[in-house]
Amino acid sequence: MFENKDNRTELSELGEFGLIDLIKKNVTIQNQSSLKGIGDDAAVIDSEGKRTVISTDMLMEGIHFDLSYVPLKHLGYKAVAVNLSDIYAMNAEPKQITVSIAISNRFSLEAVEELYSGIFLACKNYKVDLVGGDTTSSKSGLALSITAIGVANDNDLVYRNGAKESNLLVVSGDLGGAYMGLQILEREKQIFVESPKVQPELDGNDYILERQLKPEPRADVYQMLRDLNIKPTAMIDISDGLASEIFHLCSQSGLGIELFEEKIPIDPQTFERAMEFGIDPTVAALSGGEDYELLFAINMADYDKIKNNPLVTVIGHFTPKNNGYYLVAKDGSKHELKAQGWNAFLDKKD
Amino acid sequence: MFENKDNRTELSELGEFGLIDLIKKNVTIQNQSSLKGIGDDAAVIDSEGKRTVISTDMLMEGIHFDLSYVPLKHLGYKAVAVNLSDIYAMNAEPKQITVSIAISNRFSLEAVEELYSGIFLACKNYKVDLVGGDTTSSKSGLALSITAIGVANDNDLVYRNGAKESNLLVVSGDLGGAYMGLQILEREKQIFVESPKVQPELDGNDYILERQLKPEPRADVYQMLRDLNIKPTAMIDISDGLASEIFHLCSQSGLGIELFEEKIPIDPQTFERAMEFGIDPTVAALSGGEDYELLFAINMADYDKIKNNPLVTVIGHFTPKNNGYYLVAKDGSKHELKAQGWNAFLDKKD
Repeated sequence: MFENKDNRTELSELGEFGLIDLIKKNVTIQNQSSLKGIGDDAAVIDSEGKRTVISTDMLMEGIHFDLSYVPLKHLGYKAVAVNLSDIYAMNAEPKQITVSIAISNRFSLEAVEELYSGIFLACKNYKVDLVGGDTTSSKSGLALSITAIGVANDNDLVYRNGAKESNLLVVSGDLGGAYMGLQILEREKQIFVESPKVQPELDGNDYILERQLKPEPRADVYQMLRDLNIKPTAMIDISDGLASEIFHLCSQSGLGIELFEEKIPIDPQTFERAMEFGIDPTVAALSGGEDYELLFAINMADYDKIKNNPLVTVIGHFTPKNNGYYLVAKDGSKHELKAQGWNAFLDKKD
Repeated sequence: MFENKDNRTELSELGEFGLIDLIKKNVTIQNQSSLKGIGDDAAVIDSEGKRTVISTDMLMEGIHFDLSYVPLKHLGYKAVAVNLSDIYAMNAEPKQITVSIAISNRFSLEAVEELYSGIFLACKNYKVDLVGGDTTSSKSGLALSITAIGVANDNDLVYRNGAKESNLLVVSGDLGGAYMGLQILEREKQIFVESPKVQPELDGNDYILERQLKPEPRADVYQMLRDLNIKPTAMIDISDGLASEIFHLCSQSGLGIELFEEKIPIDPQTFERAMEFGIDPTVAALSGGEDYELLFAINMADYDKIKNNPLVTVIGHFTPKNNGYYLVAKDGSKHELKAQGWNAFLDKKD
């Protein structure tokens, strides 16, 4: 990263161009297709007749992250990760990102370096190039906007609307962890607010804290699907929670769903913490969100290729639309599934 | 636009998906290359072997705009316009945009509709498709982040670093108007703060107010250059002010410049208001910014093709680097040119 200084440097000393230069100096271009990166009006990408895929996300301080417990480096990493996750969810490969930040004078240069060190680490890990963006000031707080650009052959692209009746519903990894990690962080913040001298108790929560603070987009699942020659019929990534994402796949594909509670993959640590907090672990998986796993539909014929694969779990199957949306509970009872996605406007009041 | 209602609708009534649906309903896809727009994880663009060009900008309330005198519709229009301007400055044609907004509960749905009506108008006027984005909430104020995607043949692209010694420096339109428009708006705001009953005096300032509130990217100049078979050797758009942009072209091309004050195109209304405000009109042009004109270098051989063209003016010529950066004043005296671009961190304190 940038040079490590102990003293605080005001952003005003650098100015916008100085900051851009600093960012630029730390960028290494990794893809031949990144013809033009930072330093011109726009980035230029060689598409070679393939499809260019663009995804964008905006993260606001106080809404999407709380800097009292999210280190800036993790924030930068996560901001990139969630965008790359969107590109993989198209069955495409991310190649470039643009990063725009707005920051108030409350932040020092060192803070910005910390943020970008996370951004650069994600770029390195996923072989993605930072090719542009914008840096500006904000009246209060930090705002981040990231656009990811990916590439795919036309016939490899997977949309949300392609699932077919009796397709299997498959999810990667496990669910609910990011949400339980957030509960731990919020609890410790509350304790800190009330008794600043008490050390935070984060031990034994490593996995769920990492799920919340440093999610990884499922590049490995994307690659596995290619290696196994499986093309999902529909795919989405889990940002708002399993239930909400299932609703997107179903409504866009014009189908119903039968989801099996006992099949929903939940890590033991997620399960234990949920029980301690008095939260039903299934609810954490259905409505928690921020897991950034891939949720997709495959043809029955592909079942044998993945049935023992540790990366993924079959959790249900699609049904005709008029069968509706159902969760089959562990006791065999059927419950109507409700979408409880994250509502940005309701959850967080001014 | 959306239906016009007199009563206020809270965003929380719609939720994020409701808002996205509303936006989606108002989008009409205009380009065949927009294969996938709003409604999936990412936008898909058919590049047909051409170059995909991406540009992004972030606009923050209180920094880039003041809603006490900028109507939301104009803000939306301008936010798109400035991004398209970046694409034209690459000698490329904009085709798609993504729009991310963060809004506090202070804004009603009607306010968001107003903002998007300006965005859609710019899309319509410049035949650009809105293909994605993000909508979220903010703790305070409005933040807008727009990414524009354009296309060009590889050999048509123009960068900042291609100018050659004795190339001519050419600018479109006229300069300093947007800055003087801003002075008028700030003066009237001040009067309003002191005496709310006094009607704002905006008469006779139509041109410069429009330059500030509703700038137009120079699609016509892009087209004219193609029609005349002129490929600039270097190009940039004027967002920070003429001097700052000249510095970018010179430093990236490794050249010096001789700029002629008397050639700098300034509209009579800009000139008059500058004199009234005690501002040197040349300084308004050099340092004011936000004109969104195209500034470019051409070979001497192309001079005859544009010498009487009303869209552009030759304002100087490039020199060897060690000749430095000079402004030749109206009286023939030479002055070292200083870059005085907009400094986002210095100008606006928290």
